[in-house]
Amino acid sequence: MPSESEIISKIRRRARKTDNVVVGIGDDAAVVRASRGKDLIACCDLMVEGVHFRREWAPPKLIGRKALAVTLSDVAAMGALARFAMISVALPHDCSAEFVDELFEGIFELANSSGVVIIGGDTSSSPDSLFIDTTVIGECERGRAVTRSGAQIGDAIYVTGELGDSALGLKLLEQGMRLGDCEPNAGGETAEKMSREALMKHLEPVPRLEIGRALGERGLASAMIDVSDGLSTDLSHILDESGVGAVIHADAIPVALCVESLAARSPEIDALQLALHGGEEYELLFTCRPDCKVQLDELSRELSLSLSRIGEIVTGNGLQVERNGGLKPIRRAGYEHTI
Amino acid sequence: MPSESEIISKIRRRARKTDNVVVGIGDDAAVVRASRGKDLIACCDLMVEGVHFRREWAPPKLIGRKALAVTLSDVAAMGALARFAMISVALPHDCSAEFVDELFEGIFELANSSGVVIIGGDTSSSPDSLFIDTTVIGECERGRAVTRSGAQIGDAIYVTGELGDSALGLKLLEQGMRLGDCEPNAGGETAEKMSREALMKHLEPVPRLEIGRALGERGLASAMIDVSDGLSTDLSHILDESGVGAVIHADAIPVALCVESLAARSPEIDALQLALHGGEEYELLFTCRPDCKVQLDELSRELSLSLSRIGEIVTGNGLQVERNGGLKPIRRAGYEHTI
Repeated sequence: MPSESEIISKIRRRARKTDNVVVGIGDDAAVVRASRGKDLIACCDLMVEGVHFRREWAPPKLIGRKALAVTLSDVAAMGALARFAMISVALPHDCSAEFVDELFEGIFELANSSGVVIIGGDTSSSPDSLFIDTTVIGECERGRAVTRSGAQIGDAIYVTGELGDSALGLKLLEQGMRLGDCEPNAGGETAEKMSREALMKHLEPVPRLEIGRALGERGLASAMIDVSDGLSTDLSHILDESGVGAVIHADAIPVALCVESLAARSPEIDALQLALHGGEEYELLFTCRPDCKVQLDELSRELSLSLSRIGEIVTGNGLQVERNGGLKPIRRAGYEHTI
Repeated sequence: MPSESEIISKIRRRARKTDNVVVGIGDDAAVVRASRGKDLIACCDLMVEGVHFRREWAPPKLIGRKALAVTLSDVAAMGALARFAMISVALPHDCSAEFVDELFEGIFELANSSGVVIIGGDTSSSPDSLFIDTTVIGECERGRAVTRSGAQIGDAIYVTGELGDSALGLKLLEQGMRLGDCEPNAGGETAEKMSREALMKHLEPVPRLEIGRALGERGLASAMIDVSDGLSTDLSHILDESGVGAVIHADAIPVALCVESLAARSPEIDALQLALHGGEEYELLFTCRPDCKVQLDELSRELSLSLSRIGEIVTGNGLQVERNGGLKPIRRAGYEHTI
């Protein structure tokens, strides 16, 4: 494991300096200039080896990338713009200098492509496991942050992208499948290609930054959350905080193609259950007035990202799923990470 | 170990809400209102069991308190006001609900007494060790942050409080001494009382928030850092960043009474070495124009905190210690945490 000062010098050389960063890495704290009249957004997310990931599951670059991605996803879910990040890592002794370089390579790549500046962090050795805590600071127009508590009766419920593939990817990893087992150029709907898609959704989730911010700025979302614990659990968070109920339609849930495809071959894969309860999807789940359809269609085209209307906010306080005309209450079944 | 949602609900109930906190704990991210025209200060500090502390060394309340204290100290070292904090913890399975409650009790106590609002964080289980990463967001007048790079030739070098006691406390802990071994009400300069003082400086460091902020606001400090790695190392950071050298006077270094007292009894304790190189003191080390003496004396009286002038900034780039009229270059000997 390289020394703390070696790591910091490397990161410091690597970090971009922008006009808004008065003092970057290398002092007791960073000093940044916030935009006038905006609200600040702040959050952090912890990724622990053996709980959230295993080192043998992915190259260090993807581990670093995901650590930042999940926190950026939280800022997206507030309808805000991510601006600055700080990274704290505790590194086990068997982490080589190359491992650490690649880990930060993944972090910097995503930061740069997202317009986020790394302004600080901390490093330590770790007696056992690898820990990465990422903090992101963002901003949005004053009073425009989209919380979990704004859903209103009659609102439509939407979700970005597709669901179930990250949960399937996790399942495959737990069964022993690795990225190296899937030929990257396999074509068609081969099991190999579909498995690779599922693994990649889990290992390299893409935070929905552009659409999150657009939904916030255009005032389209009344409530929003990212799907980190699973659609059923995360929607329940919105319902709890907003004091409302919801009906979602099983047929409208955008199950990822790789999930459908692999489920058709393996009876033990239940596509709907994965899409409904699988965590770490990092899609955005939001509610909006039903008359926003035209604007959402336009946004979807603009950003080439599918948006699916999956249900409606209703009175009451529970979540029900409509399937083949029947309504069934469902309890949240998303997961808390356990070892 | 209690579940993540149980921990978050408890913390959420406990967290203060102030006018500047638009959205606190319980959403994807916190939303806060920064003061107009100020610069933002952001930093984080990681505390890892087995590296920075051991659970058997202190009650959980002190562990939590220190985790926040060290990050607040960084904000103080920028001459800024600490405003918001986020706490990420990874908890081993053998942490009871009481342990977690006490850990957060320590964090909240210090946050409340420092005027800091806890606005977020993350929790996870940990396969092995306890990890605490604290993020603090603060603010200062635009352009007024005190960095490590502003020291100028001719500046005086000052340090707050006393040094060496935290390093001695660590030594005693490593030798097997515990707080319970020292009668809290022992009087005089008994070894018991002196040992307890050393242990407490290590286990319950007090971030120098008021003086740090005052030095920044009144424009008194030209460069500043907190003594976390040791006086020699931290002063060297200032010298490196400012491109200057320094002479410090051995006799002027404020060695803590408990260090002097225990050193007089134990030949293996070298008081000056502890004060010069011992880390985790969390005193503030700063440089200022030599004509600021009157203002510093006034500040010291105001805040009932001793300020010692220990040396001067000179040309060159090294650190020298003057002792009995002789000058000796010293290499930094502060420590990076290792297991």
